[in-house]
Amino acid sequence: MTFDRSRASNGRSDQTTVRRSNLGVVLQHVAAAGPCSRARIAAETGLTRGTVSSLVAELIELKLLRETGEDESPGRVGRPAQTLELADTAVAVGLEVNVDYLAVSVEDLTGRIRHERRVFVDNRRSAPGPVLDRLARMARRALEETERQRLLVVGAGVAVPGLVEIGTGTLLRAPNLGWSQLALADELRRRLPGLPLRVENEANLAALAESWLGSVRDVRSFICVFGEIGVGAGIFVDGELHRGAHGFGGEFGHVTVDPDGALCACGSRGCLETLVGQEVIARAAGIPIASGGRTRSVTDELVRRATDGDARVSAELERAGIALGDALASVVNLFDLDAVVLGGCFGPLSPWLVGAVEEALRRRVLSAEWSTCQVYASALGELAAVRGAAALMLREVIAAPWLVGERRLSGSEAAS
Amino acid sequence: MTFDRSRASNGRSDQTTVRRSNLGVVLQHVAAAGPCSRARIAAETGLTRGTVSSLVAELIELKLLRETGEDESPGRVGRPAQTLELADTAVAVGLEVNVDYLAVSVEDLTGRIRHERRVFVDNRRSAPGPVLDRLARMARRALEETERQRLLVVGAGVAVPGLVEIGTGTLLRAPNLGWSQLALADELRRRLPGLPLRVENEANLAALAESWLGSVRDVRSFICVFGEIGVGAGIFVDGELHRGAHGFGGEFGHVTVDPDGALCACGSRGCLETLVGQEVIARAAGIPIASGGRTRSVTDELVRRATDGDARVSAELERAGIALGDALASVVNLFDLDAVVLGGCFGPLSPWLVGAVEEALRRRVLSAEWSTCQVYASALGELAAVRGAAALMLREVIAAPWLVGERRLSGSEAAS
Repeated sequence: MTFDRSRASNGRSDQTTVRRSNLGVVLQHVAAAGPCSRARIAAETGLTRGTVSSLVAELIELKLLRETGEDESPGRVGRPAQTLELADTAVAVGLEVNVDYLAVSVEDLTGRIRHERRVFVDNRRSAPGPVLDRLARMARRALEETERQRLLVVGAGVAVPGLVEIGTGTLLRAPNLGWSQLALADELRRRLPGLPLRVENEANLAALAESWLGSVRDVRSFICVFGEIGVGAGIFVDGELHRGAHGFGGEFGHVTVDPDGALCACGSRGCLETLVGQEVIARAAGIPIASGGRTRSVTDELVRRATDGDARVSAELERAGIALGDALASVVNLFDLDAVVLGGCFGPLSPWLVGAVEEALRRRVLSAEWSTCQVYASALGELAAVRGAAALMLREVIAAPWLVGERRLSGSEAAS
Repeated sequence: MTFDRSRASNGRSDQTTVRRSNLGVVLQHVAAAGPCSRARIAAETGLTRGTVSSLVAELIELKLLRETGEDESPGRVGRPAQTLELADTAVAVGLEVNVDYLAVSVEDLTGRIRHERRVFVDNRRSAPGPVLDRLARMARRALEETERQRLLVVGAGVAVPGLVEIGTGTLLRAPNLGWSQLALADELRRRLPGLPLRVENEANLAALAESWLGSVRDVRSFICVFGEIGVGAGIFVDGELHRGAHGFGGEFGHVTVDPDGALCACGSRGCLETLVGQEVIARAAGIPIASGGRTRSVTDELVRRATDGDARVSAELERAGIALGDALASVVNLFDLDAVVLGGCFGPLSPWLVGAVEEALRRRVLSAEWSTCQVYASALGELAAVRGAAALMLREVIAAPWLVGERRLSGSEAAS
């Protein structure tokens, strides 16, 4: 069946718009409030019971909601009502290209991981083509797994360590990969036809994941630092990601901390990431960096040695904590935030960093006496960005559930 | 006449709300579009001609609009229409307490200055009481001048170099004045009874002035640096002042640029203002700082010597420009802004600073290739904050003209 939307009458298209919007209202309500009955949804959204029943039926049909049994709220009278909750059949795929690894994560609407894989590979030694071929193979394996589990894939988010032009999904510049002007969304769509996908900066996605699933679920203004080989940040202001005038905000790793310092991959000198990147810390502590074929991250090795009391590693982590804290204090002086999340490699390393960061915030933030900025270790660590990539697509579906129907159609068309 | 609002019927209070809102719509339209006829206002706001005529009559009565003659637009037919424009009878008072001066500025709705005075006095050597007495005397002299000119004062904004609790008008901390926990709004209300007033951070007000009257009228995302003895900034994000989670954002002067650097008035070390404050530059260039009784600012002296080719001053300004540029590049990396305004002392000094700032932005901002951040010299210079203080109250009146009627009543009550 073809349906030319432009020919729909205004009345018809208004009805469609209202119904679509209400589908989102109901699904967002269940996502926020947890399991609840149709009656409660009606009472709390202001929609009629009849409308809610019809919307719920469509959301169950779309495999986004499911009935889970009877509402046993104390004091309930009359016929038992069915409780509704988010279904765990709709999933999104998170994909990540980072400097020394590739990752994939499949996550369902309830926040449960259904498949996850990370491989260590030095992507600095490669042109984009073979790296994206490999990532696409990992994605296909994940998609096969979703088929086996009879899951419904709503799309894929792609995390990258660089500047992204959001509208086109072009990776403008990833200094640590040495890539620039890469039509990443197009390249991946060619390799994974039929899969709706969106490209985003890794640190923005890590911040999204921390806000949705992680350590700052109830915090509206925070910075989530995402450290790996490079260092980025996602900054939330009053509940929304701060993108900036062109979508290029949050480049925390390129804050100048030592104007005459070491050369940075970006071409400038003394950027924060020349002092606190994962490999910088490891190298300064005398840990050799394998160029590929690793089975664990540099961070894991740093954690192991710091736990064992390695004095050089401890000293380097102390130095990194002070540099990180000073730079974070500058961010808090400028943005006035409620929280700092130490994410990426800084998550597992946080036991050795938090003290110095807290001390810097206390000493260097002018308003520290009137507004305490809490420091959290990431709950998601190095997997925050790839989980955020999946969360990006899941959140889109929760806000606009009708997309799933459209995508299922286009997906099956693309596969035929 | 007393009117108990709580007893008004809902219908009556809704009507009042709508009319108040529409008064704002009409006045904002004229403020934005410039002189125009009632018919054009009706056409462009969607209000009926009858409603517009009635609203315009009230705005003329409130002395916020005036008729200026006939509309001579080409192609006009029929009876000549009267053109309306902002009246110049409504004024606001800007007051400023800074570290080495006090200032007052009276500005009308059209942006014209009706009275302005700045006196140099070292307020670091004084408790708040005598300083506020002196400021209140300056304010009273300005108010007398407005009476002589038969102007209508809508209120006063107060600019201060420190952290302000906006709700109460308390100055929490002004490191360079050495003042803290000062109930500034209350103290000034006691000295200037009947005058509605609001206290704000000086740099936020300077940014407001630059956005309203100055160099970045059409720019939505910018930082306005306001340098004097201390250094602050007001940051606009997408057309709105970025206040942060508690109203303490924009503390640009306390960004760390040299962790082991000089002791700052805030108690920390190596803050930007220890490198680029006006007196720091002057002292490093060997210019003696008079402790009081000056008739010109330290900035004027720096400008004079730099213009005359004084090598020490030139060298210090070059050094300051580099430090300022590096710190601004960090801000642009974090916020992704369209423009930087060099304000306060950096306005008159900009010929010696702009080059270094532009160079730092080009070299250090990761996205520089895709988003040029323009550098502007302030159009308002050292008077931006006091002018912004007046603009704050004028903008409030343009958005909510009915306040003028209420205030006139309360003002005359207070005077009686």
